[in-house]
Amino acid sequence: MSSGKHLAKGSPKPALPDDGVPRLYSMRFCPYAERAHLALNAKKVPHHSIYVNLTEKPEWLVDVSPLLKVPALHLVAEKDQPSLIESLIIVEYLDEKYPQNPLLPKDPLQRAQDKILVERFTAVTSAFFKTVLHGAKVDDLWPAIDTFETELAKRGTPYFGGDKPGYVDYMIWPWFERLSVLQFVLKEAYNFDKQRYAKISAWIDLLTKDEVVQSFFATPEQHVEYFRSRSAGNTNYDLLA
Amino acid sequence: MSSGKHLAKGSPKPALPDDGVPRLYSMRFCPYAERAHLALNAKKVPHHSIYVNLTEKPEWLVDVSPLLKVPALHLVAEKDQPSLIESLIIVEYLDEKYPQNPLLPKDPLQRAQDKILVERFTAVTSAFFKTVLHGAKVDDLWPAIDTFETELAKRGTPYFGGDKPGYVDYMIWPWFERLSVLQFVLKEAYNFDKQRYAKISAWIDLLTKDEVVQSFFATPEQHVEYFRSRSAGNTNYDLLA
Repeated sequence: MSSGKHLAKGSPKPALPDDGVPRLYSMRFCPYAERAHLALNAKKVPHHSIYVNLTEKPEWLVDVSPLLKVPALHLVAEKDQPSLIESLIIVEYLDEKYPQNPLLPKDPLQRAQDKILVERFTAVTSAFFKTVLHGAKVDDLWPAIDTFETELAKRGTPYFGGDKPGYVDYMIWPWFERLSVLQFVLKEAYNFDKQRYAKISAWIDLLTKDEVVQSFFATPEQHVEYFRSRSAGNTNYDLLA
Repeated sequence: MSSGKHLAKGSPKPALPDDGVPRLYSMRFCPYAERAHLALNAKKVPHHSIYVNLTEKPEWLVDVSPLLKVPALHLVAEKDQPSLIESLIIVEYLDEKYPQNPLLPKDPLQRAQDKILVERFTAVTSAFFKTVLHGAKVDDLWPAIDTFETELAKRGTPYFGGDKPGYVDYMIWPWFERLSVLQFVLKEAYNFDKQRYAKISAWIDLLTKDEVVQSFFATPEQHVEYFRSRSAGNTNYDLLA
């Protein structure tokens, strides 16, 4: 229910059918927004996606996301039509509200352990951003990924979620989808070691073929092209529109 | 089940009864650890508290908190005796595992809204730390507290949790308990405005008298004394022991 075009300052508020389904305000290349898309698609929750230009935000964004953040999930069927923000909170809400295809385990201890793992992934995202945005050395990144290699070996399953992808898989995936950007930035210094990350490498191959991941996938080349346009100060939000 | 003394480098691992109850590794003046204490006490979950000197950490801490963090909840009755970290994850775990005296609402939307509010409290904690630890101006702090004044007015109840304290109340409380430290640092520049924060002021008075808060309370003077010792490079962990 979207052309995929990013609505900018001056654009009219999009006309959407009065069907009561949630509306996800998003940006096509935002890894945090991707988490919400993956959860919605994994659970097959009908929704509308509205893409927003984050450089020149539309004036009406404040009505649906008071802090002007994406992802924001606008719940038009609920009293006062509230919006939810923060990718992990949105995903947990969806998992509780729509029981089909559960993402988090039911057991309180396993739930907590999965949440801690995703919290620990912050070490990866911050090393990733420091490298691609500020040219920092990549040294912090590889030890942070070791945690996930070790955990996958310990769980002894192809996915963190077991025999199919779950909460941890989809919450950390967006950054693995963007490894090409790291390679582009680092050039010869890029040293993702497929032996050191044997389990994670097999997991990347599986996730790349996963139906849910494919429902919101951009190729390595597309991520690089988006990043290149952004670095040049002329962000091509509509690359996939 | 604790003398309240903080165990330091060189101290033997504490001998605790083999009773299977959770063990909370903590530091008496850490506001994040306080969150876990408040949740355990609100839900009346039997537990042991073990206090740790964070300047000179005991060698055995790594066995019960591999990242050397507090709070850490060591679940000795569970398979492989795992430890949970991250205050909010620990509290959600306790709320799911022990249904008595629930802290979070059951409704998925209300749960998400409470979690977003606590996430937004990060603006308060970061302004607070910037001021007390780095002498930053306090300008960021008061607007961040406005969010909570407005929300309490909107809810129309004495507590964020309704007619009694709940998740939001206990998760944000530790920083309000420490307002005296801000006053100590800022001196005449301290300008907590009781009219601007009329609802929050009434809420502070109520929380101060709350049984759960009182179960883990330090006075304004004690918080200042702790802060003073820490600033002087001679942290008095055992001030209340």
